[in-house]
Amino acid sequence: MTRSHQIAVLPGDGIGPEVVGCALEVLDAAEARYGFRTERREYAAGAAHYLETGELFAELEDELRGADAILFGSMGDPRVTPGILERGFILEMRQRFQQAANVRPVRLYSGVPTPISGLTPERCELVIVRENTEGAYVGRGSTVHAGTPNAVAMQESLNTRAGIERVVDFAFRLAAGRRKRLTLCHKTNILVAAGQLWQEVVADLATRYPEVETDYVHVDAMCFHLPLAPERFDVVVTDNLFGDIITDLGAVIQGGLGVATSANLNLDGSAPSMFEAIHGSAPDIAGTGWANPSGAILSLALMLGHLGEADAARAVEAATVEVLGSLPALSGPEMGAATAELGSRIAAIVRDDAT
Amino acid sequence: MTRSHQIAVLPGDGIGPEVVGCALEVLDAAEARYGFRTERREYAAGAAHYLETGELFAELEDELRGADAILFGSMGDPRVTPGILERGFILEMRQRFQQAANVRPVRLYSGVPTPISGLTPERCELVIVRENTEGAYVGRGSTVHAGTPNAVAMQESLNTRAGIERVVDFAFRLAAGRRKRLTLCHKTNILVAAGQLWQEVVADLATRYPEVETDYVHVDAMCFHLPLAPERFDVVVTDNLFGDIITDLGAVIQGGLGVATSANLNLDGSAPSMFEAIHGSAPDIAGTGWANPSGAILSLALMLGHLGEADAARAVEAATVEVLGSLPALSGPEMGAATAELGSRIAAIVRDDAT
Ligand SMILES: CC(C)[C@H](C(=O)O)[C@@H](O)C(=O)O
Ligand SMILES: CC(C)[C@H](C(=O)O)[C@@H](O)C(=O)O
Repeated sequence: MTRSHQIAVLPGDGIGPEVVGCALEVLDAAEARYGFRTERREYAAGAAHYLETGELFAELEDELRGADAILFGSMGDPRVTPGILERGFILEMRQRFQQAANVRPVRLYSGVPTPISGLTPERCELVIVRENTEGAYVGRGSTVHAGTPNAVAMQESLNTRAGIERVVDFAFRLAAGRRKRLTLCHKTNILVAAGQLWQEVVADLATRYPEVETDYVHVDAMCFHLPLAPERFDVVVTDNLFGDIITDLGAVIQGGLGVATSANLNLDGSAPSMFEAIHGSAPDIAGTGWANPSGAILSLALMLGHLGEADAARAVEAATVEVLGSLPALSGPEMGAATAELGSRIAAIVRDDAT
Repeated sequence: MTRSHQIAVLPGDGIGPEVVGCALEVLDAAEARYGFRTERREYAAGAAHYLETGELFAELEDELRGADAILFGSMGDPRVTPGILERGFILEMRQRFQQAANVRPVRLYSGVPTPISGLTPERCELVIVRENTEGAYVGRGSTVHAGTPNAVAMQESLNTRAGIERVVDFAFRLAAGRRKRLTLCHKTNILVAAGQLWQEVVADLATRYPEVETDYVHVDAMCFHLPLAPERFDVVVTDNLFGDIITDLGAVIQGGLGVATSANLNLDGSAPSMFEAIHGSAPDIAGTGWANPSGAILSLALMLGHLGEADAARAVEAATVEVLGSLPALSGPEMGAATAELGSRIAAIVRDDAT
C-alpha cells in the first residue's frame, strides 16, 4: 500500500500563497519520484481572512487537529494591529497543539552568500532548538497605576520543569544523531531562578546521553560567537525569548530570511507539527513574482523528514540548494528567474533525480 | 584656576590593570596638553580582591561616592562562582549609584576590520542606550516545587514609568544632538504589559522633542537590521536585557570587544558614573603584554567627555583611532606592538597633538 499523509496547507498572506504554491509543485514531484501520496486540504488563514471573518486559530483548531503536518506560508498585513495574528494565531497554535520545540537549522549552503566575511559552509552547520510554549511567551504581565507617573509594568517568564525537560530531551536526541555537542544558551547569572532550572535539567538529562558533550554560553556572548565561530556549535538549546532573538541572528549568518526555515514540533504525537519559512508576508513584493520560494521549499523538506520520507526530504533539500547556488541574487529581479520558474526548476530536479 | 576632577580607578583583574595603566598614561598626556588635572585614587576590586577579603561593592560604596567618575578595568576569574561578581559588584554599583543609562557607541572606525562584509564606517555610527537598573535585571524570581518534577521557576521583569522615562529622555536628548532619530527596540507583541509602557513613554516624550523622529523595531528583527543596515539607526533605546544582547552584536559589527566601550551614567548627579571597556579580564592573555588597550583608552575618552573635557575627549579618541587603524591585527602578537607600547604611542599623539 502506498504511504499516505494528510497535509493541512495554510498559504496565508502576501507572498505566502506564491511560495507555498511552489512548495506544492515540488511536493507533487517528490510524491511521483518517491512513491508516497499526500491528501492536502487548504485553509484560508491570516490577515486577509481575519479582516474578512474575524477568525483566528480557535476557529481552525478542530479542522487542523487531524492533519499529519501543517505547511504554513506567512501571515501579516499592515492593516491588522500588531500582536493580533501573532498571539491569536501563531502563539495559539503553538500552545494548543503543544508544539514544544521550535527547530531552526542554521546552515550555510554552498553558493549562498553570507554577510559574514570568511565564513564557509563547513563551519556553519548547527541547529537551534527553541522552547516554544512558555518562558516570557506565556503572556502574563500586568500594570499597576497605569497611565500615571507611578505606573509599574510587570512581565513574567514562567518555566516548568516538564516544559524544559521535553525540549532539552529532544535536543539531546538530536545532538546524539549529529556531532554530539549540546550547548545551553541562557543568562543564568542574571535570570537566576529560571537559569538554575534550565541548568538542572540539562545536567540531569546529560546522564542519559553520556556520549553528548554539553556546554553553556550566555545569550549576550552567543551574539558574539554565533557569527564569528558558528563551528563551536552543533545543537543549541534555549528558552523561548532567547531563541526568538538568536535564530534571527542565525538567519543572517546563513544568508538571510530567504533560506531560513523553522519546524514547530509537537513531540508527543497529540497534535500536528507545523513547518514554515521564517520570512514574513512581504507585502511590498507580493504579486510581483520575485519572491524566492527556497525558504518554503526547504520547510517542505523539513516536513517530509518529519513524516518519515527521508529520501524525499534529502532530494528536495538538495535540489533547492542546487538551484539556490546557481542564482546571481537571492531576491528580486536580480534573481534572474521568477518565483514560479524557480519552483518548477526545483521540482524538475526532484522528479528526475537519480532516475 | 585649573579644572580638577576626582577619578576613582578600579583596574580589577586579568588584563584590567595592564590596559587601565595605558589609559592613565594617556590621561597624563591629556592633562598636560589640555590644562586640567585629575586626582586619582586607585581601589582594589574584583575577583582576586574578593577571594582575599570577601569584599564586594558594598565595602567600596562610600569611598567611591565622592568621585566625579569611575574608570573601570575588568573583573573576573574562573575561581569565582559565576554570578557573584556580576551581581555583587557590577549590578550593585549600577543600582546603588543609580547608573540609569548604559551607553554603548557602535562605531566602525576606519582601518578597523569588521566581520560584516561590505560594511563601511559611514554606515555604522550609532549609539545604543540601555536601561541599566530594572527590567529582568531586578533579580526577582522564585521556584516552587524546586528539585521535583513539578518545579516551576518564575522570573520577573519589573519596569517603572520613572525608570523608563529617565533613560528615554536621555536618549531623546542624545538623538537631538545627533542625527535626530530615535528607535525603540523591544518585543511589544509578546511582552505586552512592559512593551506598552515603553511605547507610551516614547510617545509621550516625543512631544517634547518634535525635531526627533521615532520608530520601533522588534528585538528579533534588530538582530537582522543591526548587522545588515546599521545606517538605519542613530540612537537606539532599549530595556536592560535586550540591551545586554544587542550591544554584544553591536560590538561584533564594530570589530570586536577590543574596541567596544560602555558608559554607565548616573543621570541626576547623585553618584558617579562608571566607564569601562566591555571586554572581560581575559585571564588567558593576562601578563603576556598582548592585550589591546584601545577599549580602555576609548572608555577614558567617554569619561573625559562626561567630565566636560570635550577637547581632550576628542583628542584621545582620535589618537586611539589613528593607532588602531595602523595595527595589522587587533590582538595578540600579530598586533606587532605590545600593550604598553600602544599606550605610549597613543599618549604621545595626544601630548603633541596640535601643539
Ligand atoms: C511572529 C512572532 C510571534 C514570532 C515569535 O516571536 O515567536 C516570530 O518572531 C518567530 O520567531 O516565529
Ligand atoms: C557582567 C554582566 C552582569 C553584564 C550584564 O549582563 O549587564 C555584562 O554582560 C554587560 O553587558 O555589562
